[in-house]
Amino acid sequence: MQDDRPIVIVLAPDSFKGSLGARDACSAIAGGLRRVFPNAEIRARPMADGGEGTIDAVLAGGGERKAHDVTGAGGQRRTAGYGMISTPEGPTAIVEAAEIVGLTDPAGLSVAVWDRSTTGMGELLRALLDAGTRRFMIGLGGTSTNDGGAGMLAVLGVRFRDRAGQDVTPTLAGLARVASVDASALDERLASCSLTILSDVTNPLCGGLGATSVFGPQKGIRVEDVGAADDVLKRYADLVEGAFGTRAAHEPGAGAAGGLGFAAHLLGGLSRSGAEVVADLIGLDGALVGASWVLTGEGKSDAQTLAGKAPFVVARRAHAARVPATLLSGAVDRAALPDLGKVFAGCFALPEGPMTLAACIENAPSLLADRAEQLAHLWREAR
Amino acid sequence: MQDDRPIVIVLAPDSFKGSLGARDACSAIAGGLRRVFPNAEIRARPMADGGEGTIDAVLAGGGERKAHDVTGAGGQRRTAGYGMISTPEGPTAIVEAAEIVGLTDPAGLSVAVWDRSTTGMGELLRALLDAGTRRFMIGLGGTSTNDGGAGMLAVLGVRFRDRAGQDVTPTLAGLARVASVDASALDERLASCSLTILSDVTNPLCGGLGATSVFGPQKGIRVEDVGAADDVLKRYADLVEGAFGTRAAHEPGAGAAGGLGFAAHLLGGLSRSGAEVVADLIGLDGALVGASWVLTGEGKSDAQTLAGKAPFVVARRAHAARVPATLLSGAVDRAALPDLGKVFAGCFALPEGPMTLAACIENAPSLLADRAEQLAHLWREAR
Repeated sequence: MQDDRPIVIVLAPDSFKGSLGARDACSAIAGGLRRVFPNAEIRARPMADGGEGTIDAVLAGGGERKAHDVTGAGGQRRTAGYGMISTPEGPTAIVEAAEIVGLTDPAGLSVAVWDRSTTGMGELLRALLDAGTRRFMIGLGGTSTNDGGAGMLAVLGVRFRDRAGQDVTPTLAGLARVASVDASALDERLASCSLTILSDVTNPLCGGLGATSVFGPQKGIRVEDVGAADDVLKRYADLVEGAFGTRAAHEPGAGAAGGLGFAAHLLGGLSRSGAEVVADLIGLDGALVGASWVLTGEGKSDAQTLAGKAPFVVARRAHAARVPATLLSGAVDRAALPDLGKVFAGCFALPEGPMTLAACIENAPSLLADRAEQLAHLWREAR
Repeated sequence: MQDDRPIVIVLAPDSFKGSLGARDACSAIAGGLRRVFPNAEIRARPMADGGEGTIDAVLAGGGERKAHDVTGAGGQRRTAGYGMISTPEGPTAIVEAAEIVGLTDPAGLSVAVWDRSTTGMGELLRALLDAGTRRFMIGLGGTSTNDGGAGMLAVLGVRFRDRAGQDVTPTLAGLARVASVDASALDERLASCSLTILSDVTNPLCGGLGATSVFGPQKGIRVEDVGAADDVLKRYADLVEGAFGTRAAHEPGAGAAGGLGFAAHLLGGLSRSGAEVVADLIGLDGALVGASWVLTGEGKSDAQTLAGKAPFVVARRAHAARVPATLLSGAVDRAALPDLGKVFAGCFALPEGPMTLAACIENAPSLLADRAEQLAHLWREAR
C-alpha cells in the first residue's frame, strides 16, 4: 500500500564510518522511504561532526570544493581537499585535518608516529592566508599525528631550537631535543583571523587523559613509550606557552588531533561542537520547519552518541522544532539503549537477522533502505 | 519520557522456535512496551499454528492441561500432554502429534525412521474415546514418523497383514510386507466424532511432493531410499483406501506428519489452518476490538510466513479490525520483505547489531523487549 498524503521527512545522518558516507546514507534511506511514501518531500541534510565527511556535508549546502598540495603526515606530498563557503561574516575555509594528516592515509602510517608532523596543516593555512582568507573552520579528528601541532606552528613562523640553537624537526622525535621556542616571527596575519575548531574531543594535551595517553596507542605509540612521549609534549607545551605568553595545554580539546587542538587554541582558535556548527552551516533548523519526521544515524551508536555526536545534535534540534527523530545505526549498544530511547523516537540497527559485521558493511545501502522502508510502514500506520 | 494516554495493544506472537515460547515472547514484548506505555492495556494472546505450542496457546484462553502415557515413535513409553477445552459444540480435546511422536524426542530419534510408528497417537485417541470425548483437534507438525498413520489406525482396529495372513508391525519397515488391509473392526465410536486436523502442510501422501520426498530426508530417510519408501506408502495407501472405500492420498495435507494426515482424513478428519483455528479458540478477534496496535512475530519470517503462518493470520484479522499489525522476528528474509511489507505495519528483526544466531537465541527475551521498546518510542511519537 502506498500513501499519497503529503509528508515532509528530513534525513540528517552522519556518515556510516567504514561503509558509506552521509550523502549515500541519505540516498539509501530516501529510496526505502519512497517505496511507502512516493510523494513525500524528502529534505536530505547529510551531517558531520567536524571529522571525516565535514567538507562534503557543509558543501552540500553550497560553496566550492577546492584542493591544495601539502606535505602529508609522513612527509610525502598529497592533495588535500577543502571547502570555501560564504557566510554572513565573510568567505570561510572549511578544513579537515584528516584530509592532510589522516589516520586513513597509508603513506602517513608507513612512517613511525614519532616522525609524523602536521606541517601540511600549516602549509594549507599559509596558502589560504596568502589568498586572503581570514575565516577558518578546522575539523579535528581522525589524525595520525601526535606532534602537539608543532609542524603547523613551525610553518606559520614559530622556531623550535635545540640547546645548540639549531632548528629541530617539528615531530615528536625532534621535540624530544627542543630547548627553546621563539614565536616572535609568527605570521602576523593570524591576529586578524577567526579560527573555529570543530571537535568533539575534550581531552587536555597532557597527562592521563591527554592526547598521548588516550589516543597515542591507536596511532602507533607503544604503550611503554606513552610516558616518555607525554613528557616530551609537556616540556614542549611549557616552552610554547611561554613563547606565546598564554596558556592552552589544559583547555578542553587541547588534546584533540594529537595536540593540534593545543596549537590551534594558541592561534586564537575557539572550540565549538563540530556537529552544532555543521548543523548551522547546512541549515538544519530551517529544514525542520514543517517536517513530520527526522531520520538520523551513524555507523555505531552508544553512550558516546549522547555526548554531542551528530545524531544527538540532530535529535536536540528536532526536539526544539517538535519533530520526532528516529535513529538508524549499523549497531546500537544495548547498554546505552535506555538513555538513547529518551532522546530518539526509536533506535534501530541495520541487521535483518543474525549477520556478520562484514555482511552489514557490504550490504549497508540496501539494509538501510529496507530498514527505512519498514519504519515508514510503521510510521504510516501509527499516524 | 513516558506516555500515560490509554492505549490498547494486542500481543499475538507465535513461538520463537528454538529460543522461547509464545507466552514468554508475550512477556518479553510486554516488558519492553511498558517502559514506554506504563499504563497500556496489554492483551496477550500467544499464538500457534497447530504445531508445537498449540496446546499452550489454546489453554491460555481457558481449559485444562492433561496427560496420558503412550508409546513414543521409537517404542519407548512417554507422557503426552493434551488439553481439554469447552467449545459451544462440546468438550474438545486438543492434541499435538509432536507431543507423542515429536521430532525433538531423542528416544524416538534413536530408532531408525523405518521402525518408528504413530501407535501412541492411536492410544491417546482410544483413551479419549473411552473417556467419552467425541471432539478432537489434532495438530500435525514436527513429527519424526513416516508410517502413513498406520500405527494410529492399527490401535483403532485396522488390521495390516502380510501374504501369509500374519499381522505386520505398523511401521514403514512392516508396511513393506503388507498384502492386505482390513478395516472392518475399526472403532465404531469414530463415526460419531468430529475430527479437525490443524496443519499448514498441503502436500499429498506420495510422489515428488509427497511426505517422503519432501520431509523424509529430514527425518532420517536416506536420499537413495526415498523412492522405495514412497513406493511402500503408495501400495499401503491403495490397500487402505480400498478397505475404507474412500480415497484420501491425494488430498492436500495427506502428506502432513509423515502421512498421519492421510490416516486422519480417512477417519473423517477435516483440515483447517492451524493458525486460524487457534486464533478462533483464543478469541483473537475479540481482543482486537478497541485495540490500537498488534505486535506479532515468530522465529524466522520469509515467504512461507505469507502462506498462512500464525503472524499472517494475525495480520489478516487485525486488518479486518482496522488495527495495524507489526512483525517482530528473529530474522526477516530480505527477499520476502517487499511482500511482507504489504501485510505488516513494519517488519523488524531482533539483532541490535552484527551478531551470531547463537547470541540471538541466547538473548532473545531481552532483544525482544528492547526491540518492542524502540518500536513503542516510534509508535508514540508518530501518533
